[in-house]
Amino acid sequence: MSGKNAFAIASRLFYKMNGKSVDVSKLKTHTVHFGVIKEKDIVLDEVLLTVFVGPHSYTAEDIVEFSCHGSRFIQQQLIQLLIRKGARLADAGEFTFRAFFNKRLDLVQAEAVADLIASTSATSHQVAMQQMRGGFSTKIKVLRENLVNFASLIELELDFSEEDVEFADRDDLKNLVLSIQKVIHRLVESFELGNVIKNGIPVAIVGKPNSGKSTLLNVLLEEDRAIVSEIPGTTRDVIEDDISIDGILFRFIDTAGIRQTSDLIEQIGVSRTFEKIQKSSIIVYLFDVHELTSKELQKEIDEIKEHLNERSQLIIVGNKIDKEDLVYTEREFAGFKDILFISAKERINMDALRKRFVDLFDSRTINVTETVVTNVRHMQALHNAGSALEKVYDSLNKNVSGELISVDIKAALHHLGLITGEVTNEDLLQNIFSKFCIGK
Amino acid sequence: MSGKNAFAIASRLFYKMNGKSVDVSKLKTHTVHFGVIKEKDIVLDEVLLTVFVGPHSYTAEDIVEFSCHGSRFIQQQLIQLLIRKGARLADAGEFTFRAFFNKRLDLVQAEAVADLIASTSATSHQVAMQQMRGGFSTKIKVLRENLVNFASLIELELDFSEEDVEFADRDDLKNLVLSIQKVIHRLVESFELGNVIKNGIPVAIVGKPNSGKSTLLNVLLEEDRAIVSEIPGTTRDVIEDDISIDGILFRFIDTAGIRQTSDLIEQIGVSRTFEKIQKSSIIVYLFDVHELTSKELQKEIDEIKEHLNERSQLIIVGNKIDKEDLVYTEREFAGFKDILFISAKERINMDALRKRFVDLFDSRTINVTETVVTNVRHMQALHNAGSALEKVYDSLNKNVSGELISVDIKAALHHLGLITGEVTNEDLLQNIFSKFCIGK
Repeated sequence: MSGKNAFAIASRLFYKMNGKSVDVSKLKTHTVHFGVIKEKDIVLDEVLLTVFVGPHSYTAEDIVEFSCHGSRFIQQQLIQLLIRKGARLADAGEFTFRAFFNKRLDLVQAEAVADLIASTSATSHQVAMQQMRGGFSTKIKVLRENLVNFASLIELELDFSEEDVEFADRDDLKNLVLSIQKVIHRLVESFELGNVIKNGIPVAIVGKPNSGKSTLLNVLLEEDRAIVSEIPGTTRDVIEDDISIDGILFRFIDTAGIRQTSDLIEQIGVSRTFEKIQKSSIIVYLFDVHELTSKELQKEIDEIKEHLNERSQLIIVGNKIDKEDLVYTEREFAGFKDILFISAKERINMDALRKRFVDLFDSRTINVTETVVTNVRHMQALHNAGSALEKVYDSLNKNVSGELISVDIKAALHHLGLITGEVTNEDLLQNIFSKFCIGK
Repeated sequence: MSGKNAFAIASRLFYKMNGKSVDVSKLKTHTVHFGVIKEKDIVLDEVLLTVFVGPHSYTAEDIVEFSCHGSRFIQQQLIQLLIRKGARLADAGEFTFRAFFNKRLDLVQAEAVADLIASTSATSHQVAMQQMRGGFSTKIKVLRENLVNFASLIELELDFSEEDVEFADRDDLKNLVLSIQKVIHRLVESFELGNVIKNGIPVAIVGKPNSGKSTLLNVLLEEDRAIVSEIPGTTRDVIEDDISIDGILFRFIDTAGIRQTSDLIEQIGVSRTFEKIQKSSIIVYLFDVHELTSKELQKEIDEIKEHLNERSQLIIVGNKIDKEDLVYTEREFAGFKDILFISAKERINMDALRKRFVDLFDSRTINVTETVVTNVRHMQALHNAGSALEKVYDSLNKNVSGELISVDIKAALHHLGLITGEVTNEDLLQNIFSKFCIGK
């Protein structure tokens, strides 16, 4: 509970163990107190109450935290009680918004809080942590400073334009713009990587019914999140799930079997499968080694390849080698380069498969210590700033007057300012913080 | 993290925001500190660290709490880091076990912590809260004291037996035993109520496919936890869920449609339906008012009644009245007493249905302010104590020697002592705390 009435409201329902009332505003900041939450002699719970006196808190306001027993019932009752006593439910992201509003965080840092919470792999976590701690903001700040310096040189020329003084060599100015543009371009380009780091590399597992797709996914997830059954066509919903291998996030997509079917629900599944193939970076084609001949496999793979986009990569995996003689199997499918034989059920060769995933991604070289853009909004703002600078460069080439150049520089500064929140508007803020969960 | 090395381990990974290390053992009890969790210059998270110096903590030992960002990834990394630095994962219920071991709680209170967390209705919550705060323990303590007084009178007689002195009138002794037995019996009898308060009243919703069972359940749960579809037989798993109406807990059971079917999975569902009917206190028979004639309804109900146990109560509910003329419907089914017409989809008459549930239960009269036994273990121990006291009473009638009576009194004391943990053994403790989750 944050805000100027937080202490007063807490004082209305928090009592010491001996039943005495407590003036929470008299408690020292950063201290914890054991007591009960009580209304009309009915004890809701024994709790710990923690006090943060503003500005030494997350929001920079007075904050009270209650640690109650881990029961949804108690939590809901407590929230209702707090509302009866004068509090109101926070909007999504309102705590972080207040932190931003009270200048405890800039906008990039605020957004990084949400990313940090959502991160499920070492790489996405490190990128978000770096952003929350101000790494990206510093980079943007340096860019802005360079631009401001550049702008002041132009303005100076403007002031003395009648005297035909050139304060800065035009070539030097061009080089400065080029170097800023180079940084911006590198950041914009990092977004593809950033997006994959943040959201995971999409992997589709496809194959005939009963080839073991659900089992494979389950083993990979090491949890029973998909329905596994002996009855073909049991997996009806496209289930998405994330898994982190060697710190890299993969977003696995389990699909209904690829086959013609009269079943209403399953038909939806099949058409979705082709959709998913097109959206995936890695496609695992899974088949049962004793169900297909090499000729049939070739036909299947040809069909898949029709739906591949040019950037995605195919891994052919023969499953259920436990039931088959491996030497025979390898001879049958000798014509397929890079084919991998596994048994998901018996967990044979699963590490080799995992390594294959990581290798496919490693080739794109991750270097998290470099600043990586993970946020569409930031990418767009950088892109817009870059476009404005292109106009500046053109104007410099065409010897356009400093006044016109100045407009484009201001546009570039505006777009960079939107990133950290030095420039802002209500729609933008609403859009950002509405994505947070309540209580964050 | 609890125990004598908690502070030392925390000091190995917690740093101030300026990077300086912290000697956690030097921090004051019940204080909160902002800083980072760091290993080899990689910052895992910015956290709040809270210090509780023993014995002023839940376990009565030194405790450190970390509040990190709400990400599973960070939580897992932090736990792994703590383990690398010398901590180990707590066993299920180990925190509460230590609290019991260090005499901060007795056994009834420890068990009530788990009940409190699990409680999902106002009544079960109040019962658990009362037990956690020592209400039930006090009751048992009084019983034990009465018994000890009684035992000492017997012992006294024993000491002076050769002198043929009667320190207590036999009739007074008998009355004392009777009054203790009466309390024990009342407690044993309260278990049936207690069990229902704690676990919910089992309610089965049964009926033909497409009568709207899933929709009804969903509306009651006000969440989409069951699969609803236009295709008959879609609901395959028996889904159990709890709902609290007017503070009373009902455990709803959604079942596959009652019908003969060739579908493997669905057949399992049908036989389960009859099993569930037998286990339920309330059976809702749901039918589509424009699918059945009153004759067909009678046949259906007769079939259900064959499977009812003598304690369970049947509510007949006609669904989908939105699609039908209500007057006509009421005339068609006029022969059925207490039939209720609703539309789950259009949420018509749902409150009347909810009231019907509550009324059926209210007739059993809940009075939570009286001590209610909710725990099978307690019930069994009370039962055993009662049996021992019966023997005492018999012996008094038969003028058996004080020595033999004394053995049975000790047995009764033993069983009562098991409840609060004054008497205990390792198996019992293991059994109790293994039901807790880790970290509680």
